[in-house]
Amino acid sequence: MHGYAHLFVPGPTNVPEPVRQAMNLPMEDMRAPDFGGFVKPLLDDLKQVFRTRTGRVFVFPSSGTGAWEAAFTNTLNEGDRVLMSRFGQFSTLWVEMAERLGLRPEVLDVEWGKGVPVTEYARILGADRSHEIKAVCVTQNETATGVTSDVKAVREVLDALGHPALLFVDGVSSIASIAFEMEDWGVDLAVAGSQKGFMLPAGLGLLGVSAKALEVSQAAGMRRAYFEFSDMIRLNDTGYFPYTPATQLLRGLRVSVDLLLKEGMENVWARQHHLAGGVRAAVRAWSGCGIVAAPEFLSDTVTTIRVPEGVDAVAVIRTAYDRYRTSLGAGLAQLSGKAFRIGHLGSLNEVMLIGAVGAAELALLDTGARIEAGSGLAAAITHYRNAKTAQQKAA
Amino acid sequence: MHGYAHLFVPGPTNVPEPVRQAMNLPMEDMRAPDFGGFVKPLLDDLKQVFRTRTGRVFVFPSSGTGAWEAAFTNTLNEGDRVLMSRFGQFSTLWVEMAERLGLRPEVLDVEWGKGVPVTEYARILGADRSHEIKAVCVTQNETATGVTSDVKAVREVLDALGHPALLFVDGVSSIASIAFEMEDWGVDLAVAGSQKGFMLPAGLGLLGVSAKALEVSQAAGMRRAYFEFSDMIRLNDTGYFPYTPATQLLRGLRVSVDLLLKEGMENVWARQHHLAGGVRAAVRAWSGCGIVAAPEFLSDTVTTIRVPEGVDAVAVIRTAYDRYRTSLGAGLAQLSGKAFRIGHLGSLNEVMLIGAVGAAELALLDTGARIEAGSGLAAAITHYRNAKTAQQKAA
Amino acid sequence: MHGYAHLFVPGPTNVPEPVRQAMNLPMEDMRAPDFGGFVKPLLDDLKQVFRTRTGRVFVFPSSGTGAWEAAFTNTLNEGDRVLMSRFGQFSTLWVEMAERLGLRPEVLDVEWGKGVPVTEYARILGADRSHEIKAVCVTQNETATGVTSDVKAVREVLDALGHPALLFVDGVSSIASIAFEMEDWGVDLAVAGSQKGFMLPAGLGLLGVSAKALEVSQAAGMRRAYFEFSDMIRLNDTGYFPYTPATQLLRGLRVSVDLLLKEGMENVWARQHHLAGGVRAAVRAWSGCGIVAAPEFLSDTVTTIRVPEGVDAVAVIRTAYDRYRTSLGAGLAQLSGKAFRIGHLGSLNEVMLIGAVGAAELALLDTGARIEAGSGLAAAITHYRNAKTAQQKAA
Amino acid sequence: MHGYAHLFVPGPTNVPEPVRQAMNLPMEDMRAPDFGGFVKPLLDDLKQVFRTRTGRVFVFPSSGTGAWEAAFTNTLNEGDRVLMSRFGQFSTLWVEMAERLGLRPEVLDVEWGKGVPVTEYARILGADRSHEIKAVCVTQNETATGVTSDVKAVREVLDALGHPALLFVDGVSSIASIAFEMEDWGVDLAVAGSQKGFMLPAGLGLLGVSAKALEVSQAAGMRRAYFEFSDMIRLNDTGYFPYTPATQLLRGLRVSVDLLLKEGMENVWARQHHLAGGVRAAVRAWSGCGIVAAPEFLSDTVTTIRVPEGVDAVAVIRTAYDRYRTSLGAGLAQLSGKAFRIGHLGSLNEVMLIGAVGAAELALLDTGARIEAGSGLAAAITHYRNAKTAQQKAA
Repeated sequence: MHGYAHLFVPGPTNVPEPVRQAMNLPMEDMRAPDFGGFVKPLLDDLKQVFRTRTGRVFVFPSSGTGAWEAAFTNTLNEGDRVLMSRFGQFSTLWVEMAERLGLRPEVLDVEWGKGVPVTEYARILGADRSHEIKAVCVTQNETATGVTSDVKAVREVLDALGHPALLFVDGVSSIASIAFEMEDWGVDLAVAGSQKGFMLPAGLGLLGVSAKALEVSQAAGMRRAYFEFSDMIRLNDTGYFPYTPATQLLRGLRVSVDLLLKEGMENVWARQHHLAGGVRAAVRAWSGCGIVAAPEFLSDTVTTIRVPEGVDAVAVIRTAYDRYRTSLGAGLAQLSGKAFRIGHLGSLNEVMLIGAVGAAELALLDTGARIEAGSGLAAAITHYRNAKTAQQKAA
Repeated sequence: MHGYAHLFVPGPTNVPEPVRQAMNLPMEDMRAPDFGGFVKPLLDDLKQVFRTRTGRVFVFPSSGTGAWEAAFTNTLNEGDRVLMSRFGQFSTLWVEMAERLGLRPEVLDVEWGKGVPVTEYARILGADRSHEIKAVCVTQNETATGVTSDVKAVREVLDALGHPALLFVDGVSSIASIAFEMEDWGVDLAVAGSQKGFMLPAGLGLLGVSAKALEVSQAAGMRRAYFEFSDMIRLNDTGYFPYTPATQLLRGLRVSVDLLLKEGMENVWARQHHLAGGVRAAVRAWSGCGIVAAPEFLSDTVTTIRVPEGVDAVAVIRTAYDRYRTSLGAGLAQLSGKAFRIGHLGSLNEVMLIGAVGAAELALLDTGARIEAGSGLAAAITHYRNAKTAQQKAA
Repeated sequence: MHGYAHLFVPGPTNVPEPVRQAMNLPMEDMRAPDFGGFVKPLLDDLKQVFRTRTGRVFVFPSSGTGAWEAAFTNTLNEGDRVLMSRFGQFSTLWVEMAERLGLRPEVLDVEWGKGVPVTEYARILGADRSHEIKAVCVTQNETATGVTSDVKAVREVLDALGHPALLFVDGVSSIASIAFEMEDWGVDLAVAGSQKGFMLPAGLGLLGVSAKALEVSQAAGMRRAYFEFSDMIRLNDTGYFPYTPATQLLRGLRVSVDLLLKEGMENVWARQHHLAGGVRAAVRAWSGCGIVAAPEFLSDTVTTIRVPEGVDAVAVIRTAYDRYRTSLGAGLAQLSGKAFRIGHLGSLNEVMLIGAVGAAELALLDTGARIEAGSGLAAAITHYRNAKTAQQKAA
Repeated sequence: MHGYAHLFVPGPTNVPEPVRQAMNLPMEDMRAPDFGGFVKPLLDDLKQVFRTRTGRVFVFPSSGTGAWEAAFTNTLNEGDRVLMSRFGQFSTLWVEMAERLGLRPEVLDVEWGKGVPVTEYARILGADRSHEIKAVCVTQNETATGVTSDVKAVREVLDALGHPALLFVDGVSSIASIAFEMEDWGVDLAVAGSQKGFMLPAGLGLLGVSAKALEVSQAAGMRRAYFEFSDMIRLNDTGYFPYTPATQLLRGLRVSVDLLLKEGMENVWARQHHLAGGVRAAVRAWSGCGIVAAPEFLSDTVTTIRVPEGVDAVAVIRTAYDRYRTSLGAGLAQLSGKAFRIGHLGSLNEVMLIGAVGAAELALLDTGARIEAGSGLAAAITHYRNAKTAQQKAA
C-alpha cells in the first residue's frame, strides 16, 4: 500500500506531529521527584479545556467507557433513578452500563437522527417532585448518528425546576472539539477520551467532575476500586497517581493541551465548524445521499451519511479502505449497511477533508451510487472558499 | 541534563528499540476490516507468554490494578471469603481492593522480606472443609520487597486437599520475566501489566483466565461493566474489542511478544536470573547494606536494598536522580527511608546494570555510606564473568 | 496550523511510515563487525533498482549534485568535449557544473517543455568522427518543466554510430519512479538522490556506474578526493565506507529498497503513471491553465502547470502554503510567476493527489483564476475511476 | 540482543532525546516561504558554537571529509605549499587529500601519541621568508590516538613571524566538545562533522570560514563545483541552499545547537573534561594498559588505550560488541590489534561512562588481560566523586 493511510473515523483521530514527537520517548519513573511538577499544571490546564473553574479533571488509564463507569460508581448508589435517552449506539451502551451497575435508568427512546428530548426531560423532571431522579444524562454528541444535543437547555430545565439531580454529559466526541462549558452549563460529570478532540492515541479516559459531584462522591456507595475518586484526589494533589499512569500518553497530552489552549477553545470550536461545513456541503451535493442528523442536531465532529437506495454502505467503507487507503466510519446497529460516517474532529484541515470527500465519492461511485463525479468535491471547496471569504470580510 | 536517563525502577521498564519504533505511528481505525486479523493472533500468542493452553488472555486499557479488579469482579461474589497474605505494599493494596469490593479477605500478615506462607495456607485451607474460601491469592512477586513466592507450592496444597478455590496470582512484576506456568500450576487468574516484563509503556492491564475461571465468571454476580469478561470474549473472538482499544500499545505489544517468544520464555527467565545475580553480588559487597528479601525468596526482577544505619535512603534515590540521572526505586511504606530498590526486569543487559550499580554506589557514597568505592562494581562484574564462563562450560 | 502538512513538491517526497520508523533509531558504529553484513546486500539490491547487472551503485553522503560531480570527475578529463542539452533549470545547472569542472560542453538549447533533441544529438555525434566527444548527457526527467526524455533513443543513436562516448543520465527525479533500464539502455553514469523515488530525506547522492565507466575511471585524471570511486570500491567491497556514512539514511534506504523491490519496479512505474494521469486530467480541466511539457514529453513524476494570464503563480504557491498547508513546487527561472508544479513522485496514493488537486484549485481560485470550482477534482477522480476499471478489465 | 546498545566510539555519538524527537518528522519543502526564516538564525547561531564573529559557517550535505575538500578547493591553488603534520590516521588521510588535490604538503611526521610539533612549525615557517607556504594545517584532535594539539600556539607562531598563511584546523572530533576559539585563535578554516560534538547522525560537514579566507576564496583557482563557497553564500544569505539540503538533519541541528548554547560552550568543554577524567583514571588503574597520548596531549573526547602485551585489541573490541553490546573504537593502522579506543564525546554522563569502563573491563578480562576486576571502575567512580566534591567546594 502506497502513500499515507487516511483516517476519517470519529476517533481515533489524527495525531499532530508535535504530539507524535513528544510520545516518541524512553520510559520514565512515574515516582520521580520532578514528575509531580509535570502532572499538577497538566491537570490544572485540563480544567481550561473542560471549562471548569471549581471542578477537577481526572485522567484514568482506560477508555472513555471506563470514565463513564467512574462517573456512575463514584456519585450514585445502586437503585438510583437516572434519566437517560437513547438515540444511537453510544447512548444505548450508556443505558446498558447504567443497568449493569444496578441503577434504574428511565429511558426515553428517540428517533435516530435526533438528540436529547429536552421537553420530555422537562416533563419527567417536573413530575419528579420527590427528587428520586438522581442523575440526568446527556449524550452531547452521539457518534453513531452525528447528532449534537443541547446540554445547556437541559441545565436550564433543571434550574427552572430547582431539581437537584446531577447532570452527566457524555462528551467523548465533543469535548475539545465543539462548544462545551462545564462550569457555565452546570455539568457535574463530563466524560471524554484521549483519542478524539485531544488528538492522542486511545488509552486515557478523562473525567471532569464538578465541586458538587465531588462532594456527593464522598458519600456515594457503589462498589468501586480502580476508579475511586478519593485515591485519585489524594495522589493527584501531590502530582502523582494511585497506580502507574500511562506516562507516554500524559507527555503527549501535555503537548495537545498546549496546542488547544494556544489556539483558544473558541477558535478550536470555530475551526471544527468550518471544516464540518465542507463535508456537509459535499453530502448534500451527492444525489441520493442524506445526512442522518436532523438539521437542528448537526454535529461538527462527525457526519453520518445515508447512502442511496441499492448501495451497500458496508461495501462503500470496504472499498474506501481497500482501494483508497481511507478509513471511513461504519454505520452502527440499525444504520449498518445503510450509512457510513466521516469523522471530522481532531487535527485536520481543508485539504485532508477534500481527500476524505474524494475517497468517499470514489467509493460511492465504485459501489454503484449514481452521484455525479466531482459533485461533492466541488461543493466542499466552494464551501471552504466562501467561508474563508466571509471570515476575511468579518475580520 | 546530558546523556541518557537511566531507568532502574521495577517498572516502567526500558522499551526495546524495535518496540519503540513500532509505536511511532499514525493512528488507525480499530474497526478496520483487517484489524481483527492483527488482534486474533496477538491474543493467541499472549497465551504462550502466560503459558496457558486452555485459558485466554484479556487486554484491558488500564493499569495492572484494573486487571486485579477485572479478576475479582468477574469471578467472585460479594461476601466471598478470600485467602490472602500481606508482606509488602502491593500485597497490601490487593487486600485493600478485596475489601473495597465487598469480599471477605482472610489475611495472613507476614514479615516483610518473606513471601506467601504456604504452610499457613495449607492449614487454613485444610480447615475449610465447607469450601467457603472461594479464592486463594498469591503475590508471585512483591515489588516492594523484592520477594518471589512459590505459586506452584500453593497449587500443590490445593490439589492435595482437593480444595476447589480459584488460584489468583498477582504476576505484575513477574510474568514475562520469571518462571510462570499458568497451565501447569493451575493458576486461574493471572494479572500482568504492560510496563514490566512486556517492556511497554504503562497503559495495558493483561489478565490470564483459566477455563475454570471463565466458566465461573458466567455465574458470578459482582457489579461490573468496563471489565466485563463476556463483552471482551464476544468481541475478541472476532478480533475486535468492546470499546476503543489502545491500538498504539497493541502494535508495540505485537513486537514485544515477538521478541519474547523468539527468545523463548525459558531463556527470558534465565537471562533475568543472570542479570539479577550481578546486582545481588554488588549489594552483598556493599558493607552495611543488605538485601531485604530472605534468601529463599530472592526475586529476579527487583532487589530491595536496606541502606546502612545513618544513611537516608530517600537521599540516596534523590542523589542518584539529580546528580547521576538515574532512577532507582523508592523504599515503600515501612521501608521508606530505609531501603531503595533496583529494578532489573525488562530489556536490560550487563552493561546497563553495571551503570545501575555504579549510580547506586556513587549515590551511597555521596550520602555518607561507608562502602568501598568500586566494591559493588567489582562484585557485579566478577559475577557476570563467572556466570558467562559457567554457561560456556555448560554449553 | 492544524492537520498534516501536504507535500507535493518534486522532492523531497513523502516518507513511508516503515521508512520513518526505521530511521527513528539511536546511532551505531559504522565500523561495527556486523555493519558490513548490512551494507553489502544493500548495495547489491540497489543494483536491482537501477537495473544494472554488471555495474555498481555508489552511495555518497551528498545531494544529487554531489553525485553529478562524482560522475564527471571520476570518468572525464579536463578539456573533454561533452554533448549536453539545456531545457530547464536542472539541465542548465548541469551544464554549468561541466564548465566549472573544466569540461567543454557542447550545448544544445531546446525550448522549455521539450526534452533531449535526439536527432540533433545524432547529427553532432555522427559528425564527431574522431570521437572527441567523451560523454553524452541526458536529463531523463527535467524537474523544472516536467519533461521526460528518451534515454533509450540516445543509446540507439550511439550504438548505430558506434560512438564510444559515455552515456550520462541525470535520473534524480526519475530513477525509482519511472522506467529506467541502466543495463539495457547502456547507461554509464546514472545519478539519483535519496529524496525522490527513494522516498527518504535528502542527504544521499546515489550513482550507478557501468562496468565500462568503472574501467574508464581508473585512468581518468580530474582532481578529486571526496568523490573518489577507488576508495569507495575498496571499502564497499568489504561492506564499509572510506568515511563516516550517513547510517540513519542507510537504515531508511534498506526499508525503501525493500518496499520498491517487493512491489516490483515495473509496478512502481505503472503506479506513478496511474497517479500522474489524475493530475494531468485536472490541469486539462482547469480553464486557462496548461501543461508546460509537450505531449510526447509528459513526465510521470512532476507536472509543471502554466497559470492563466493575469494570475501570479507565486501567489498561487504562497496561498496554497499559507492557507491550505500545502507545498506546491515553484516555477523556476523563466517560468517563475508563470507556472507552478505538482510533484507526484514518491509515496503517494489517489486520495493524496485529490488533496493536491484540491489545494491547487482553491489557491488558483483565491488568486483570481477563472476556473470552475471542482472542475479539476472531477476530472481527477474520473480519471482514477476509469483507470482502475481498465486495470480490472485487463486483469 | 537485549537492552540498549552502548556506543562509545569517537563518533557517531549518542543523540540526545530532544534531537531524536526533532528528527522524527515528515519531509518538508526546502523552498517553502518560511524555510529561510528557519535557516538564517541557525547559521548565525552556529557561529557561536564555532566562536567566530566575523566569519561564517557552511553546512554541506557531506561527511567531515567533504568539508576538508571544501576548505582546500575554495582557498588554495594547485601547487601551493601546505605545512602539515602526521601523527595518526586522520592527519595522515588529510595529507593524502592535499596530495590528491594537487597541493604540495610539507609533512612533519611525529610519533603517534604526540601532536602538532609547534617548534618545528615555527622553524619551517620562519625559514619561509618568501611566504610560499599558503596554509598551515593543525589536526586539533587526532581521533586515532586521542591527542589534542595546541592550535593557539600555532597561531602565536604565525603572528610572531608575521606569516600570512591560512590556518586550517581539523576540528571534526573537537569542535563543540573541547575548547575551540575560531576568532580569538585566528583560525581560517575549521572543519567539523555532525556526528561528533553536534550529537547528530552523520551526514553534515560543517565548515567555519574566516573573513580572510572568504576573501581569499574569491580568487582561488582550484576546480570545484559541489563545494563552491560562492553558491552557498549567495543562497545562504537568503536562507536557502544551492541544492537540496538535508532538512531532517538541519531540524536536528537546530535542537542540538540550542542545547549547546543553552549550556554554554565553556560548560560543554568543562563537562567533557570531567567525563574524560573518569575514563583516564580507569585506564591508569588497569595493570598493563596505557594511554597512547602523551600527558601534554591528552584528549577530552577520545582515549586510545594500549592493551597489555599478549592481549589482542581486536578481540577486546569484538568481545565487547558480541557479549556486552558495546561498541568501542578500533585501534587504527599501526595501532590495530594493539589499542582500542573509548569515545567520550557527545551526549554522555557519568553512568554511561561507568558502563563503558565496565564493558571494557569485562572484555579485557575475557580476552586474557590480567587486570583486577573492578579496578578501573573503582578508579572511575572515585574520580567522579572527587571531581564533584571539588566542583562543589569551588562553587
